[in-house]
Amino acid sequence: MTIQHLVPAKDLGQFVAELFEAAGLSVRAAERVSDALIEADLSGRSSHGVLQADNYLARLVAGAMSTAEQPRIISESGGAVVLDAAGMEGHLAAEEAIAIAIAKAQDNGVAAVAVRRGQHMGVAGRYVRMAAEAGCAALAMGNTKPVMPAPGGAERLVGTNPIAIGIPTTDHPIVLDMATSAGTYGRIRHAHAAGQTLPEGWALDAYGRPTTDPAAAMKGLLLPMGGAKGFALSFAIDLMAGLLSSGAWGAKLGELDDDTTKPQLSSYLFIVLDIAHFRPLSDFLEEADEAVRRVRQSRRAEGVERLFTPGERSAEALEKNNGMIELAPTVAHALRERAQALGVAIPRFMEEHPTAEAVPRQS
Amino acid sequence: MTIQHLVPAKDLGQFVAELFEAAGLSVRAAERVSDALIEADLSGRSSHGVLQADNYLARLVAGAMSTAEQPRIISESGGAVVLDAAGMEGHLAAEEAIAIAIAKAQDNGVAAVAVRRGQHMGVAGRYVRMAAEAGCAALAMGNTKPVMPAPGGAERLVGTNPIAIGIPTTDHPIVLDMATSAGTYGRIRHAHAAGQTLPEGWALDAYGRPTTDPAAAMKGLLLPMGGAKGFALSFAIDLMAGLLSSGAWGAKLGELDDDTTKPQLSSYLFIVLDIAHFRPLSDFLEEADEAVRRVRQSRRAEGVERLFTPGERSAEALEKNNGMIELAPTVAHALRERAQALGVAIPRFMEEHPTAEAVPRQS
Repeated sequence: MTIQHLVPAKDLGQFVAELFEAAGLSVRAAERVSDALIEADLSGRSSHGVLQADNYLARLVAGAMSTAEQPRIISESGGAVVLDAAGMEGHLAAEEAIAIAIAKAQDNGVAAVAVRRGQHMGVAGRYVRMAAEAGCAALAMGNTKPVMPAPGGAERLVGTNPIAIGIPTTDHPIVLDMATSAGTYGRIRHAHAAGQTLPEGWALDAYGRPTTDPAAAMKGLLLPMGGAKGFALSFAIDLMAGLLSSGAWGAKLGELDDDTTKPQLSSYLFIVLDIAHFRPLSDFLEEADEAVRRVRQSRRAEGVERLFTPGERSAEALEKNNGMIELAPTVAHALRERAQALGVAIPRFMEEHPTAEAVPRQS
Repeated sequence: MTIQHLVPAKDLGQFVAELFEAAGLSVRAAERVSDALIEADLSGRSSHGVLQADNYLARLVAGAMSTAEQPRIISESGGAVVLDAAGMEGHLAAEEAIAIAIAKAQDNGVAAVAVRRGQHMGVAGRYVRMAAEAGCAALAMGNTKPVMPAPGGAERLVGTNPIAIGIPTTDHPIVLDMATSAGTYGRIRHAHAAGQTLPEGWALDAYGRPTTDPAAAMKGLLLPMGGAKGFALSFAIDLMAGLLSSGAWGAKLGELDDDTTKPQLSSYLFIVLDIAHFRPLSDFLEEADEAVRRVRQSRRAEGVERLFTPGERSAEALEKNNGMIELAPTVAHALRERAQALGVAIPRFMEEHPTAEAVPRQS
C-alpha cells in the first residue's frame, strides 16, 4: 500500500499557486490553475489534480509552456471561432474558450470554438459544467497522444481522447466526462505496483496480442472502451478537435508525462447550445430534473444501494469534501524540489512526512 | 440456417415505393423512403433496411404515422432551429432537418436542429454523411424506447440511443455510427434462434442479474457498451435530443416493433459545423485524407488482413454491391400481405419462393 499524506486543500492550493506564480504566471492566473487542480482532487479526480502540477511547472520553467494568459482569436465567423493557445497553460486556455463559446451561443443559439496548441486541459467535464451553469447544453472534446490501435491494429493511432457533455438541471448539472479508453495508464501502473492483473479488454502487448499483464500493457497499447465503437469515437474526436482548429492530432500530439522540455500539445473543440434559443430554460430544467429523479428512483439490482446520474459522484465528492487532500509522497517530493528550485518557501504541512521516508530521494 | 431469398435491389425498391405510395405518400416521398431502406440493405445495415418497411406501412395504414412530408418549423433563432415532425415518416423528417442544419451552418458557421415527434430515422450515419458531402462536420443523435438500466439498476431507463459523427474526406466521409448498447436485440434474437449463448456484458435478466441466455435477455435488459460510459452517453443523447426539441424522451418514447397503432416517437438532434468557417476546406480534406491513410497503413496484429476507418465497410459494401438484396422469408411474406391489403400488384420476383414454404402462412 502506498503511504498517503493528508494535507489541507486550502494550504496546498496556496502553495501550488505560489509555485505557478514563481514559474511566471500572474497572481490571478496562478490561482486559477491551482484552483482547477485542487477542485479535481476534491471531486475525486486526482489523476487530473495536483499530481499534474509539476508537469506544468516543468514546462513553464523549460519554456515549453508559455506564460501567456489569453489565447489569440484567429477567426470568428458567426458561431464558429478558432483560437490559438500557442502553448499556454491548458486550463486557462480552455476556460477562455468555453467563456467565448457561451457568449457566442447566447448571441447565435449555437457556437463552436476550436482551439489549437492548447496543453493539458485537465478535467474536460469542468468546461461543460461551466456552460451548463450558464443555461447551456455543451460538448467538449480534446485529443491526446496516441496510445490505442485501430481494431485489429498493433500500433498506437489514437489517444484516450476525452469527450464531455453537460446538461443543466436545477441542482448539479448532468456531466458525462469520459476517456475513450477502457482503462487508464494510472490504473495499470497501480495494478503493476500492487502485483495485480488487468481486466480483460484493457490492453494489448507490443505485438498487438491481448494481455492482462500490467508490465506488458505498459510497453504495449491501451484498448478503447466498447471495442470498435470506442476507437471510432476516439478517432472522430481527434479529427474534430485537431482538424477544425488547424491544430495537432494523432502522432503530432505531444506527450503529457515524458518530455517536459516539449509542449504537451492538444486540440480542443467546444460546442455550446444556448437552451433559451430552443425553448424556455425553466421548462428544460423541469424535465431535466425529472430525468434525474427517474434515475434515482429506478429499480436497483440486488445489493445495489444507490443509482447515480453522470457526474453526480464527482459533484457530491466536491460538495462533501472535508477540505483535505491525499498527497502521494512522490507528488509531495516533486513539489518540494520544485519549490527549492524556484525559491518558494516550503510550508510546514509540506515538509517531509516521517512515514514517507521509504520513498527514495532522487538528487 | 434461415433460408434467404436474393432479389434485385432495383425491383425491390420499386415495389417498396409502390407500397408507400399506396399507403398515402406522394410518389416522390415514397421513392425517398424506399431509397433509404434499400441503401441500408446494400450497405450491410439490413436491420435498418427493407426489414423495417412493414413497420412504417402498418403505422401509415393505422394513422399512427402521418403522410405529411415536411416538418413544421417551430422556431429559428440564429443557428438554433426546432422542428415538429408531428409523426411523419422518420427518414423524410431527418433528411429535411439535416438539410436545414447544413444551410444554417453555411450561414452561421454552426447550426443545431432539434426535431420532436419524429419516427424511426433509420441509419443515423446517413444524415451526417449528407452533411459531410456538403463540406461539414456533423453530429446526429436520436433517442429510442428504454431497454437499458443505469449501472446497478434493474429497470429500463434509456434506449440504444445512437450517435453518429461525420467528417469529410476527399473520398468517402468518415462516418461513426453506433448504438450505445453493447449488443442488439437483433443479434440476441439470432443467438436465440441458433441456440447460442450471448457474449458476457450484453444483457441482464429481468432481476438485473448478468445473463448469457438469450431467452432471459429478451425478457430482461440490454447493457450499455463500455459499462457506465455507455449509459452516460445514452442518457445524455436522450436528453440532448428529447429536451432541446421539447419532444419525447425516456419512457415517453414509442416502441418500434410492438404496437403499430401507435407512433414510434423519437427526438433527434443534428449539430452541423461548416468547415469553411473554420479553415479552408481543401486544407481540412488534405489532413483528413492523411488520417485515413494512417489507419490503413498502420501496423496490424498477426492474422489481421486489413484495418478499416469508421464507416469504411458500409461505404465499400454500398459501392461494391451486386445489386441484389437478401430478403428474409418473413419480411417477404409481410410485404406480400401488405401489398394484397393495399391493392398493390405483387411482382414476379416477390412471389412466394419455393424454399420459403417452411414459413407458416398467417392468414
